[in-house]
Amino acid sequence: MKFPGSHILSIDQFERGDVERLFEVADRMRPYAHRQRITRVLEGAILGSMFFEPSTRTRISFGSAFNLLGGEVRETTGFETTAIAKGESLFDTARVLSGYSDVIAMRHPEEGSVREFAQGSRVPVINGGDGSNEHPTQALLDLYTIRSELMSRGRGLDGLRIAMVGDLRYGRTVHSLSRLLLLYQPVHVHLVAPPELRMPAEITEALRSAGHEVIETEALEQGIAGVDIVYSTRIQEERFASREEADLYRGRLRLNQSVYTANCEPNTVIMHPLPRDSRAGAQELDVDLNDNPNLAIFRQSDNGVLVRMALFALILDVADQVDTHARDVNWFTERRF
Amino acid sequence: MKFPGSHILSIDQFERGDVERLFEVADRMRPYAHRQRITRVLEGAILGSMFFEPSTRTRISFGSAFNLLGGEVRETTGFETTAIAKGESLFDTARVLSGYSDVIAMRHPEEGSVREFAQGSRVPVINGGDGSNEHPTQALLDLYTIRSELMSRGRGLDGLRIAMVGDLRYGRTVHSLSRLLLLYQPVHVHLVAPPELRMPAEITEALRSAGHEVIETEALEQGIAGVDIVYSTRIQEERFASREEADLYRGRLRLNQSVYTANCEPNTVIMHPLPRDSRAGAQELDVDLNDNPNLAIFRQSDNGVLVRMALFALILDVADQVDTHARDVNWFTERRF
Amino acid sequence: MKFPGSHILSIDQFERGDVERLFEVADRMRPYAHRQRITRVLEGAILGSMFFEPSTRTRISFGSAFNLLGGEVRETTGFETTAIAKGESLFDTARVLSGYSDVIAMRHPEEGSVREFAQGSRVPVINGGDGSNEHPTQALLDLYTIRSELMSRGRGLDGLRIAMVGDLRYGRTVHSLSRLLLLYQPVHVHLVAPPELRMPAEITEALRSAGHEVIETEALEQGIAGVDIVYSTRIQEERFASREEADLYRGRLRLNQSVYTANCEPNTVIMHPLPRDSRAGAQELDVDLNDNPNLAIFRQSDNGVLVRMALFALILDVADQVDTHARDVNWFTERRF
Repeated sequence: MKFPGSHILSIDQFERGDVERLFEVADRMRPYAHRQRITRVLEGAILGSMFFEPSTRTRISFGSAFNLLGGEVRETTGFETTAIAKGESLFDTARVLSGYSDVIAMRHPEEGSVREFAQGSRVPVINGGDGSNEHPTQALLDLYTIRSELMSRGRGLDGLRIAMVGDLRYGRTVHSLSRLLLLYQPVHVHLVAPPELRMPAEITEALRSAGHEVIETEALEQGIAGVDIVYSTRIQEERFASREEADLYRGRLRLNQSVYTANCEPNTVIMHPLPRDSRAGAQELDVDLNDNPNLAIFRQSDNGVLVRMALFALILDVADQVDTHARDVNWFTERRF
Repeated sequence: MKFPGSHILSIDQFERGDVERLFEVADRMRPYAHRQRITRVLEGAILGSMFFEPSTRTRISFGSAFNLLGGEVRETTGFETTAIAKGESLFDTARVLSGYSDVIAMRHPEEGSVREFAQGSRVPVINGGDGSNEHPTQALLDLYTIRSELMSRGRGLDGLRIAMVGDLRYGRTVHSLSRLLLLYQPVHVHLVAPPELRMPAEITEALRSAGHEVIETEALEQGIAGVDIVYSTRIQEERFASREEADLYRGRLRLNQSVYTANCEPNTVIMHPLPRDSRAGAQELDVDLNDNPNLAIFRQSDNGVLVRMALFALILDVADQVDTHARDVNWFTERRF
Repeated sequence: MKFPGSHILSIDQFERGDVERLFEVADRMRPYAHRQRITRVLEGAILGSMFFEPSTRTRISFGSAFNLLGGEVRETTGFETTAIAKGESLFDTARVLSGYSDVIAMRHPEEGSVREFAQGSRVPVINGGDGSNEHPTQALLDLYTIRSELMSRGRGLDGLRIAMVGDLRYGRTVHSLSRLLLLYQPVHVHLVAPPELRMPAEITEALRSAGHEVIETEALEQGIAGVDIVYSTRIQEERFASREEADLYRGRLRLNQSVYTANCEPNTVIMHPLPRDSRAGAQELDVDLNDNPNLAIFRQSDNGVLVRMALFALILDVADQVDTHARDVNWFTERRF
């Protein structure tokens, strides 16, 4: 892959060098995302934010990332029922909409739709999620977060020890993250799930073939011991035949502060793709973890802005111009933490 | 209250000095809102406009105010059903969304929700209305309008004589405005409503305890005599058990030009929080008042932009920099009136 | 008509000189729309994009056009049910919303609504479609496309030979385009439609009275022979009593590459207002035409941005300042074709 002008449709496009280049640029976005500096490098550019399926946080994360580079955002949310009902092909839709912007971020409920759209688009398209298929920027921000958290603890990605917890069968994020980990030196992966929600065998085998150590278990206490990262995920109710069936699994793998203290090494990082289920029956990550400095879930969502800024900068080939269009921020930027 | 970095959740936060500081800054926003000058003081800043309940005019008023200071707006309209359905807490939602902007304006259908959201937010939050609870910027723009209209007639706020007309029981705006008036020297308040829609006793008593003169009446003619301001409000159908019950009250307190001429002092100012009900059965403010120069209802909604610009400038601490990032407007700006 | 400050409600406002001025300015917008240059001439200006009826592509075309001139966009999509339900008049809505922007682009499902809105607006209003009544920017971009395509073939608009094909009875675009053609020297018009979907007699007569030659036919092969432009339109299902009735007409006037080769002169331009119906039963313009360089349908939608930029520039009186606020583009702008 080369970035300038590239579509970003799948994490399979990325080789290790691409990931490293992306993360290095993302690091350089911190002063802008943290409001110490502003840059106007993309002043005059337009992002087409085409969310044919709602996703407030992903949509706004993309939009803010583009604004932080100085660009404008034109947006659609929800299904454009009219043109579809009139029999327009995705190719035509893409052909038309790509005349209105410099780059497009798109989410769509159907698998493969973003790739089909990209074939009609005259400008680069970033996949913001196509059904249960791909959501590459989520996987990239997850790995970037693992890297950042480990770096701040004096470590690197190689030799990583990670526990993935929860619904590993239907969770798109853990699948994608696993595929990204294939690019790295042998890592230790604990897969913690009830038998019915185990990681698909093809992914487990791919990890093992790449030389990674994979341990599968149903026991949370055992799974989260001796790892650097606990990556918790939601039981996705919508995947089950009934609410009753989903309820069988909800709350089985709850992590709270006392479980953490009893089982985790000090400084074990806690991640979650969010939203976490905070209802009484679920509490995947109990709110009593909110004061634990190793709870990285909000740094993780913040990192989404850095990674998306970096992607835009690389696709539009301005990564090396960002700092030359910059100045200090002149407004109140203190944050509450 | 100090403004830089403050949440704006309730008018109870405001002392008289705060109101005066706000209005003084709002005055200085006129050349920008009136398109004689533009300022880029907030270029690079992002407003998160989170309207979980629709309100086109409030939403666009906030957004335009931010644009007029040079900033960008990222927006959500309607309920983010997905994350709520997935069991996310308002704290988490706030934590995540506050990573995408420098300040947030939020409306939500539930009382107290904006305060709860603010507790999770890392950036300042402005309440754009939370159910029937608070809508502080509306009360501030109302008082700002009263002050501006009186100033242009050579008067000040002290000694103000005001009639509030209509549904005083359920009308959020008259409640908030009354509470703001407590900050001022004794004023004369006429409360004009059917018995079933009278101002709540606690507000009437608070006004009296503060030394204000309060007169309650059902008769429009009597109520609007001898005042500086007539503040009319809508009968809120949605508050009644049935349309029939609401219809009992609709149209009872109609103001038109002949009623105005017969009862009001010359130059009595007419206000309304809008939308006014212009249907045949209602006509709270008859369209024959449109040519009356004392009809201030559109100056009132215009003032919302000034007050919101001033709030943004104070919260982000750029009030004193606005003019240094300014220049003349270069496009056609003549307005039809 | 003069442009600065004008509402754009109907193509009937345009005289030939206005159209020529508009097209000349649109030509000068190419370097900006094609991302060779950016201009900031409208930096600080705000477009109110009020789409009370959904239309993703028209809405985004207007918004991008305004962004390309350096301005900001505040937007509403879908019906503002609340204020309407509360009995607000379009006059009041316009009065209020026009306090938030410098110019308004508006679409509304009811005929005449945009004109009524404009009467209350204090800023210029552009009609983005009001029911089945008018959609002037579509007609203007159609004529601009005809002119551009002919110019690139060394021709002009006078003496034009055009075939309009499909549903000529209900198609708003062919009606408006016909009315624009009245401004030009005698042209040759082929009207190709089933008897039930013929062009309304008043339009046919207006064309003939203006000296134009009009030939009506049901036969596609005959109609598309000997013309410069084939303007195809969609059978609008929603106009018929039943799907069955609409299906009687769908697919009757299909154009594909072999029909084109057999009947059209070389370089005959193919246009369509889009969306084209690409479903199996319809195929108004077969996808095998996608490789035909004379298929101008995507250049046509791209031209919408140029024409809307030109309209904004003329209404806000900055047409002659566009180039003085310009600079080269610094990001990757290569397009896929």
